[in-house]
Amino acid sequence: MSSTDIDELFYLLENPTRRRILQLLSREQLYTLQMSREIDVSQQAVVKHLRILEEHGFVASRDEPSDRGPNRRVYRSARSVSLHIDVGPSTFLEQVAPHSDSSQLSDEQRRVLSAISEARSMEPTARMDLLARVGEDLRYSLQGLERERQQLLALVGELNCEVGRCSRRAECSYDERRMLHHIMQNPSYTIEGASAALGLREAQVRTLLEGLEQRGLNR
Amino acid sequence: MSSTDIDELFYLLENPTRRRILQLLSREQLYTLQMSREIDVSQQAVVKHLRILEEHGFVASRDEPSDRGPNRRVYRSARSVSLHIDVGPSTFLEQVAPHSDSSQLSDEQRRVLSAISEARSMEPTARMDLLARVGEDLRYSLQGLERERQQLLALVGELNCEVGRCSRRAECSYDERRMLHHIMQNPSYTIEGASAALGLREAQVRTLLEGLEQRGLNR
Repeated sequence: MSSTDIDELFYLLENPTRRRILQLLSREQLYTLQMSREIDVSQQAVVKHLRILEEHGFVASRDEPSDRGPNRRVYRSARSVSLHIDVGPSTFLEQVAPHSDSSQLSDEQRRVLSAISEARSMEPTARMDLLARVGEDLRYSLQGLERERQQLLALVGELNCEVGRCSRRAECSYDERRMLHHIMQNPSYTIEGASAALGLREAQVRTLLEGLEQRGLNR
Repeated sequence: MSSTDIDELFYLLENPTRRRILQLLSREQLYTLQMSREIDVSQQAVVKHLRILEEHGFVASRDEPSDRGPNRRVYRSARSVSLHIDVGPSTFLEQVAPHSDSSQLSDEQRRVLSAISEARSMEPTARMDLLARVGEDLRYSLQGLERERQQLLALVGELNCEVGRCSRRAECSYDERRMLHHIMQNPSYTIEGASAALGLREAQVRTLLEGLEQRGLNR
């Protein structure tokens, strides 16, 4: 995922009103007036943010006939995306992930999906009980994954520290240290790729790689 | 995590230069001049962003004596945090997670950590090979977790759609639908909490809950 996409997502999602609008539209499609009332922001401001979100494909709109006067424009959420960033000493990871659809579910997850749709024949109370239980299970599983992810990130941090120690012990130059981190994070690096990522000429990249080889830090 | 924290994190991390600074400092501590050269941004701008990051605890600095003239200020990364946001039709999740430290690792993860530090007695080439392999394994595991997370999010989306269907079938009002989503996402909700989250008076919340009970959508 290019840094432009990440920049675009941060720009769009940094604004608290735009995030609130996307939150409301994740529940159901809405008119400007409903969003304006619920977020307590002027209709004019809501329209401005909706226009920006629509330009970037996050919302879509259509005109709906109204009994009482002119057509009303109704908005819906239109783009699924996840943005993750992890920062800290020895950790920096930024990532944009597209959402998967239900075609990529495991067998167990498919059973959950079937249970959800089979519940349609139940009495409302039993149906809501089942949906509430499934919701709790899903939140619990998501929390477990997040814990596991944080543990892996802690290991990535330790690994990065260790690479730093190696480079200091071998008395690498500043650019050699940058190069070493680059090749560790990109095992299938190319001269061209390293040159672009580190802002160095290809000849410089070659010299750095030779320097690392001489120290036994690269094959 | 309160929305203020999320707003603060989005504000700080939205800026591409600040993200680049944090990326550089995740590798090693640096002087302003080094960052300015590597990001290709004026020292003045780098100093401005460093001040903002330091005010929010993301970087820390100290003065270091220099052979050639006055003290030089050196900066390091000082705060670990993860920010996740997932948006889309029937999905909205925003989350700030603190990083875990190595005290919370599983037995298998501890073995990886031991392997990393035992590698210190190896020859540089063998040590780097081992670190590179561990790095690849960790990236692979992180990708696996992300896939699993996206599958769970797809199920959460299906669940939210189903709750929406229930509320439309029961001909709930707009506020009843909002209330229903709130109690589904917060099983241990309180009248006060719902009142604050939905921007409704407590008496209104009670009326909505009664309406949902009469339709069999809440106990």
